[in-house]
Amino acid sequence: MSGEQSLAPRPHRPKSDKERKIGHRRVGEGGEITYKKIQTTTIMGSIQLGIQHTVGSLASKPRRDLLMMDFWELETISFPPEGSSMTPAHHYSEFKFKIYAPIAFRYFRDLFGIQPDDFMMSMCSAPLRELSNPGASGSIFYLTDDDEFIIKTVQHKEGEFLQKLLPGYYMNLNQNPRTLLPKFFGLYCYQCNSKNVRLVAMNNLLPSYVKMHLKYDLKGSTYKRKANKAERSKSSPTYKDLDFMEHHPNGLFLEAETYSALIKTIQRDCRVLESFKIMDYSLLVGIHNLDLAVKEKQEAAAKARSEGESDYEDAPEADQYMVQEREEQRTTALNRSRSINRQRLVAHSTAMESIQAESEPIDEEDDVPPGGIPARSEKGERLLLFIGIIDILQSYRLRKKLEHTWKSIIHDGDTVSVHRPSFYAQRFQEFMATTVFKKIPSRK
Amino acid sequence: MSGEQSLAPRPHRPKSDKERKIGHRRVGEGGEITYKKIQTTTIMGSIQLGIQHTVGSLASKPRRDLLMMDFWELETISFPPEGSSMTPAHHYSEFKFKIYAPIAFRYFRDLFGIQPDDFMMSMCSAPLRELSNPGASGSIFYLTDDDEFIIKTVQHKEGEFLQKLLPGYYMNLNQNPRTLLPKFFGLYCYQCNSKNVRLVAMNNLLPSYVKMHLKYDLKGSTYKRKANKAERSKSSPTYKDLDFMEHHPNGLFLEAETYSALIKTIQRDCRVLESFKIMDYSLLVGIHNLDLAVKEKQEAAAKARSEGESDYEDAPEADQYMVQEREEQRTTALNRSRSINRQRLVAHSTAMESIQAESEPIDEEDDVPPGGIPARSEKGERLLLFIGIIDILQSYRLRKKLEHTWKSIIHDGDTVSVHRPSFYAQRFQEFMATTVFKKIPSRK
Repeated sequence: MSGEQSLAPRPHRPKSDKERKIGHRRVGEGGEITYKKIQTTTIMGSIQLGIQHTVGSLASKPRRDLLMMDFWELETISFPPEGSSMTPAHHYSEFKFKIYAPIAFRYFRDLFGIQPDDFMMSMCSAPLRELSNPGASGSIFYLTDDDEFIIKTVQHKEGEFLQKLLPGYYMNLNQNPRTLLPKFFGLYCYQCNSKNVRLVAMNNLLPSYVKMHLKYDLKGSTYKRKANKAERSKSSPTYKDLDFMEHHPNGLFLEAETYSALIKTIQRDCRVLESFKIMDYSLLVGIHNLDLAVKEKQEAAAKARSEGESDYEDAPEADQYMVQEREEQRTTALNRSRSINRQRLVAHSTAMESIQAESEPIDEEDDVPPGGIPARSEKGERLLLFIGIIDILQSYRLRKKLEHTWKSIIHDGDTVSVHRPSFYAQRFQEFMATTVFKKIPSRK
Repeated sequence: MSGEQSLAPRPHRPKSDKERKIGHRRVGEGGEITYKKIQTTTIMGSIQLGIQHTVGSLASKPRRDLLMMDFWELETISFPPEGSSMTPAHHYSEFKFKIYAPIAFRYFRDLFGIQPDDFMMSMCSAPLRELSNPGASGSIFYLTDDDEFIIKTVQHKEGEFLQKLLPGYYMNLNQNPRTLLPKFFGLYCYQCNSKNVRLVAMNNLLPSYVKMHLKYDLKGSTYKRKANKAERSKSSPTYKDLDFMEHHPNGLFLEAETYSALIKTIQRDCRVLESFKIMDYSLLVGIHNLDLAVKEKQEAAAKARSEGESDYEDAPEADQYMVQEREEQRTTALNRSRSINRQRLVAHSTAMESIQAESEPIDEEDDVPPGGIPARSEKGERLLLFIGIIDILQSYRLRKKLEHTWKSIIHDGDTVSVHRPSFYAQRFQEFMATTVFKKIPSRK
């Protein structure tokens, strides 16, 4: 699924008919977005009410050991617009909010050091931002204002699959809180007018205050793994395997220790996915080019100086407004970038922490965003990589994609095992360990 | 199930017809014991070969994270008498040995600090001892020579149930290695002549070098909970709830801190059992009376002195042999008691460690067996309690015991919930917290 976690501003320009509806997501004439014909702003506001309620009511329940049955629990709360003894009044349509396995997910949040108050603040204290570039699945992605969490719509079967996965997911996290697998912090269902919108809360892989100069969705396959024209025309496209091989014919270079830690983590994660017969997942790779960022900063400063010389008070109203908007954007970016200098809320959640590597970042200057994995391009440019394994809940879809399956069997020359999980995992690991990531040759 | 873990020597006296077969366990004319008509010595020797093989072959497999699928794994090895490339020759009948979830149980052994070499030494370096007093279920109990482990035969359904329980058991142990629940270290099946003997390896609750002056199997019910005549005539009978209330009308007294730790542990364990709809479990309580033990020691010494005065070299041959045997027994007991002075092999496995209590034993003299929970009788005698929850795998049996169920419903006056797991757990906890264990009143 391309385009996940892309952070370009939501486009308001008119779209082609084809672009207007992907899955349940529609973009209306005026640019307003709906999901299952429900206004996205309504969904956002309602789920914030729901999450606030569940985190609040959980706080009053004493801590106790997690039990197997906690994985199957389901709590439902009604939110009438006029309010009730348990829920506040609101100006959205009447809705129900279902919380799957509340105690199990509290345990997972605890495991990652997320305090209930912090989780509630992140989720509910400011409006969510909807990400544009929703990707081929038609999912909607919401980002919390503090950049910590993603809330993503999932299909019915994906939600069911996650529920089944929970005990094994528990086992994995218990043994390895450091993993590149998605970190799930909640599974919810927003129910309105007999429509169900299922949502997962996850860690955010790509901090929005760090510019991703390049972004890849890699599977280790070469069949049809090229971003299409529509994707490439976007301001921040998500490229695929063949694009990567074209852009980086010699891969990305890591220090030996970092390389080993990364590959070891990928192997361990693949073993978990394979054990659950999961396939078709991707490695999302965001590349922040530090050298390019410095150059861009200098250019922007030069441009700002030359702009400052002109007197924009004389400019037409529309232009003034645009400048004002740009300044507001800068302030927002600044506020968000405060988190650069503080510990990230979610422990073990940055790419660097996920792979357990101990080595220091290439550059310790203040303006280097933390958490990325230091790397070098072929040309020697200093890079920071933001990575994670995504799309692990869609395995069930494969059966419907028979045509693609058979074509890729012919293309990849493997007649039996191409879509078996072990083949998928093996090919995935090998591609990452040999084509995508390279060890910097020892200087000895 | 009464009589579990009783450690009296195996009786060789002729038995009544009724005693001769309980479940699959038979005692033959000459006192030899069979299980499913297989000689118990054959079973013992064969399972030692099987365990030796599996622990050895596991050692060559690299450590890796435990996966959900590890719980469903089953390994089968054939042991032809002439030996094979993988197995040694032996003088038993040809058999197969099945190992359930080998990697999962290795993980559990690791969790309790049991090194592979130590486990193999305990299991295989010396012949197992079969416990007499097998209890109502007709299970056979083997004790390892070093007193650390029990191997117990289980029925097909019990084995299946344990397999299903494993993921939840994992969750529980991960959160609470300190628990009074049975610690399972292996599940095996010995297969010979199309007969299956299923076995679990567990921790040993009652050290054989500590004399248990009284022993109880407590459920918190009063219906028919009295040891029968046959049981009471045994050298070390296992009494039941009504007997306990008669022997200790005011219960057993614990220091406040110890009492709280014990009751908290029982409550937590009951919650786990309840979550799995498990019922009909018992608390096994072995009481070592320190004051009585001192008196017994003095009496034995006095008796030995008076015996020493007689010249037993003149005694008839048979008598000489008996004395010799008695001395051999003393040596064996001495060897076993060496473990008093070393750390127990299995961490968190003594009664005291299981309840997480921090308080010091009542008496720090050298001859006080370690691991017991210090307590006082009503008369102020110093006691050591050896306890654990047993018989958690038999829930399925209840359906067959309908008659008993309905009678106890009438007796206990509860018409609906008597056999619901939450009722069972509640009654069990309450009985332990109010009738069996008492807090020593504060001296302030």
